[in-house]
Amino acid sequence: MATDVSWALKPRIYVENQRARDPAYHVTEDALHRALGDIEGASITIRFDDERDEEALRQASVFIAGRLDKALLSSQDQLRLIQCTSAGVESYMPLDWMPPQAVLTNASGVHAPKVGEYGLLVTLMLHERIPAYATLQRNHVWQRNLRPTISGSRVLIYGVGALGGAVAEKLRLLGVAIDGVRRSGEPHPCVDRMVTPDRVAELLPEADILIITCPLTEQTRGAIGAAELALLKQGAGVANLARGAVMDYDALAAELRSGRLSGAVLDVFPQEPLPPEAPWWDVPNLVVVPHVSADDPFSYIDRCLEILADNLRRATKGEPLRNVVDGERGY
Amino acid sequence: MATDVSWALKPRIYVENQRARDPAYHVTEDALHRALGDIEGASITIRFDDERDEEALRQASVFIAGRLDKALLSSQDQLRLIQCTSAGVESYMPLDWMPPQAVLTNASGVHAPKVGEYGLLVTLMLHERIPAYATLQRNHVWQRNLRPTISGSRVLIYGVGALGGAVAEKLRLLGVAIDGVRRSGEPHPCVDRMVTPDRVAELLPEADILIITCPLTEQTRGAIGAAELALLKQGAGVANLARGAVMDYDALAAELRSGRLSGAVLDVFPQEPLPPEAPWWDVPNLVVVPHVSADDPFSYIDRCLEILADNLRRATKGEPLRNVVDGERGY
Repeated sequence: MATDVSWALKPRIYVENQRARDPAYHVTEDALHRALGDIEGASITIRFDDERDEEALRQASVFIAGRLDKALLSSQDQLRLIQCTSAGVESYMPLDWMPPQAVLTNASGVHAPKVGEYGLLVTLMLHERIPAYATLQRNHVWQRNLRPTISGSRVLIYGVGALGGAVAEKLRLLGVAIDGVRRSGEPHPCVDRMVTPDRVAELLPEADILIITCPLTEQTRGAIGAAELALLKQGAGVANLARGAVMDYDALAAELRSGRLSGAVLDVFPQEPLPPEAPWWDVPNLVVVPHVSADDPFSYIDRCLEILADNLRRATKGEPLRNVVDGERGY
Repeated sequence: MATDVSWALKPRIYVENQRARDPAYHVTEDALHRALGDIEGASITIRFDDERDEEALRQASVFIAGRLDKALLSSQDQLRLIQCTSAGVESYMPLDWMPPQAVLTNASGVHAPKVGEYGLLVTLMLHERIPAYATLQRNHVWQRNLRPTISGSRVLIYGVGALGGAVAEKLRLLGVAIDGVRRSGEPHPCVDRMVTPDRVAELLPEADILIITCPLTEQTRGAIGAAELALLKQGAGVANLARGAVMDYDALAAELRSGRLSGAVLDVFPQEPLPPEAPWWDVPNLVVVPHVSADDPFSYIDRCLEILADNLRRATKGEPLRNVVDGERGY
């Protein structure tokens, strides 16, 4: 960052909303004013992606959008801050397209309260065999499978960052044992045993439930493949709240069809929206949910804009920014 | 109870297990010895229902079974204690068939830890629209419905006894508002507002989620009918963990088909096992689970036998027994 902070003192903010997206993800002028609070003198332009204001964009120091057009942004040398309202930024790697003075920030952390609850939900669903009952229901079959309380179970969280940490916090309420995998291997107060990704094979055989919450990077792509799934015990369950490409869904489907794994809840897929002809809809003991585990429509954009406003204040004081995407790390 | 306590000092125990039932519900000799502990001199006979030992039964002072044969038991005048290993005893009302000196005890309270967790599960499922996603999945439709965190929601528990109280305790972990209905109207530490059943219409319109956990009695049969369901707000969800006959399922199905109610999870049905031709399997946004919400197979019988052993000790000391079924009240 250069030491000139005028771009942050009187920021010229350009918002590009996607018309095709749920309005819950649209940044409104009200929401921006609420977030900016005491930041005076900001100029604000809000447009849909199909009604771009090229002139206002060329003057902007701050760009906000849910999806970034790399070709468009690469030529905007005046940009200093690009705030992506998504946490996953894997499709913008490498960051060689970035204007030279700009930093990219993402929405990491915005999803924590919501995904924590969702982690609690999918853990209980898998423990109580809800995916299997959904399949039995389609076949009109009444087949009881009595389950104990969950307190004796062990959950493995793959990726203990903002999402996985929030899941671990909620799972503590159930009295289950919690294992974790994180790149740094650093301990987490709600995780009993933490290992680095290269040691996941040590923990997989003990997990009753595996929950995926890591970012998609070159390191995590395909990280949970056939070999890893085969290490899970008979009757284990799996949930993916991260990105579809982290897991090998063909291998997962085979384990579900054979009955070795007891169920799965998948919130994310390599292609979204999942097309009607996708095979996953009909895999037995697999519950499909449409990428809803982490976004709270009532607070999502407000929480994204809090990060933006905080970063504008930090920039004016010369402090380091939050949520800066690291091009080397990939998130 | 007469003051003669010899029947409890050296109890002659007859157990009738149902061969057709899941072995999780069978009383074993090991389990009985574990439970009886220091109660010496008990004689124990354990038989399946299709291999009855008439002679041993005629000498028994204590009878234990999951299902009671009223005609058989009515002539066993020597019986003093009939322990039913089910909590629901509606099919034994009125108690005019009981041997004159006997009391009937049930398994109320045995289900608490398990049903508390299940209440947490169904509340989160209904909040997150899992029943609707299950229906969309059958139709291969990807349709997102972003939901906020649950903390702003209000749950109404119909029947705050052993089951409903356990559900309320678990729901406290979610930070939701909790209303309750109970016959006595007495407050409960985890319930914000408690009313008697005649005032349920005051609370129904404010509930986001209604959970049924009452016993089936002449008062609760059909208690949640078309009129009560119509008082729920647009988008509310319903779960029944009690008995099928408490709710009008035809009225519920109509509310689900119209889309006015957002979803339901039903664990109990007027006829169980639910036959393949039952209409409920295919009602949209309705999840069928096969009467599994309250029974923990690892602890169920042990917890029933703890009640029995406690009652034998109480009887020898002339203390009032626990879990005695009240024929007037119906549970």
